[in-house]
Amino acid sequence: MIAVGERINGMFVDVKKAIQEQNKKVIQDLAIRQTKAGAKYLDVNVGTASADPATTMKWLVTAIQEVCDTPLALDSQRMSVITAGLEVAKGKIMINSSKGDAEVLDKWMPLAVKHNAALVCLTITKEGVPQDLDKRMEIAATIAERAMHHGLPMTDIFIDPIILPVNVAQNQPRFLLDVMSQVKCLSDPPPKTIIGLSNLSQGTEERSLINRTFLVMAAAAGLEAAIVDVFDEALMDAWITAEMIMNKQIYSASFLKAGRL
Amino acid sequence: MIAVGERINGMFVDVKKAIQEQNKKVIQDLAIRQTKAGAKYLDVNVGTASADPATTMKWLVTAIQEVCDTPLALDSQRMSVITAGLEVAKGKIMINSSKGDAEVLDKWMPLAVKHNAALVCLTITKEGVPQDLDKRMEIAATIAERAMHHGLPMTDIFIDPIILPVNVAQNQPRFLLDVMSQVKCLSDPPPKTIIGLSNLSQGTEERSLINRTFLVMAAAAGLEAAIVDVFDEALMDAWITAEMIMNKQIYSASFLKAGRL
Repeated sequence: MIAVGERINGMFVDVKKAIQEQNKKVIQDLAIRQTKAGAKYLDVNVGTASADPATTMKWLVTAIQEVCDTPLALDSQRMSVITAGLEVAKGKIMINSSKGDAEVLDKWMPLAVKHNAALVCLTITKEGVPQDLDKRMEIAATIAERAMHHGLPMTDIFIDPIILPVNVAQNQPRFLLDVMSQVKCLSDPPPKTIIGLSNLSQGTEERSLINRTFLVMAAAAGLEAAIVDVFDEALMDAWITAEMIMNKQIYSASFLKAGRL
Repeated sequence: MIAVGERINGMFVDVKKAIQEQNKKVIQDLAIRQTKAGAKYLDVNVGTASADPATTMKWLVTAIQEVCDTPLALDSQRMSVITAGLEVAKGKIMINSSKGDAEVLDKWMPLAVKHNAALVCLTITKEGVPQDLDKRMEIAATIAERAMHHGLPMTDIFIDPIILPVNVAQNQPRFLLDVMSQVKCLSDPPPKTIIGLSNLSQGTEERSLINRTFLVMAAAAGLEAAIVDVFDEALMDAWITAEMIMNKQIYSASFLKAGRL
């Protein structure tokens, strides 16, 4: 399991304030605490906190890497912001994200290859978010095909099937589970799958319960990575337990502790 | 989801004591409380609490049905004990359980047909508990075939793929998930599946967490029923949430309450 810590995002009030005040202590504290809580990557997203997101991305990356060497997931739809982050970032990087149109992938994939970075690819195109399994798999196949073309290792591809809020699209989650298992048949080795979990429970009252319940199902269906609130202990416990039950982590009396290392 | 409440079992100290003291108040209280907690069936198992289990089964069934009309799952390996319960029980009954040998099924299935009862059939034979998927599915196919032969409706068959403690058989749970989905291909309509959940976590420290995590995976794989501790609120919440995410129960702000009705 690859937990990507979601907290360093300018959409959160404390992070926005820290960016605006250039208070790197807040960011560094979040980086260290998320790593201790089990994050294997730290998402870094400027959000709407800055009028100059490229410069802010550099500042965030530099601040984090002063205190911690957890790999970073640079999160932006704008290539100029990602490129700014890549200029200063050290170690393995995940780029989050490219859309699934061939012509869009053809811009992002060479960048990932150049930096030996992993690339999150959304199953979304200019036609929008697919509402069924088949269209998602069609886009996933395009993603895999372009990765082969560009020489981007399949193990560096993270396909994100796009999660929608369950209270408005209750028929969608089962399609995502099918994507997670079917992606395994695309190639050998196959691409990985990733989800931005918190979107599932937007607007509901039982957010943590809904998030962790779906994450368990997803882990059983083969999901490798998720962008999550790693401070949600019940969620991390559930995910680690799911991996243990699926025999991906050895059972011991301290398996919950071991799963966070 | 069909929650079968596990608590009226002579293996529990309070139930054993109640049986030995013929204190039906304790049994009736468990029946009512389990029903309120969401049980759709009440398991009734004499366990080792009595030297005359057939008479005790009758006493338990009568005591329960004085105060509550929740369907009962009569639980014994001995046909004489089940038959005694069937003599006094009213309403829909689940017989728990027959083994999966054809000659054993040929004894239990006519009894189920005669009483219009559901029948739990274990994927276990005189050769023991299978350690893989294929053998479990072979036994499941025998169960479906014998049900057709005896005219037992497939919707009254609950196939139990036998859960083993995860701390000693960590490679087994994923086979059970595969059984749950593959059973759907045996016939149309297919048999249902059921598990005795608590056995999964025997000997572990995180019993409730392990139980509810697997139950969520199982619900996503198509499991219909489980014998569980319905007083475990976190477990019931997880199961209801899983059914909601799989679009089997409509989302509303009060979905956790609705799922217990």
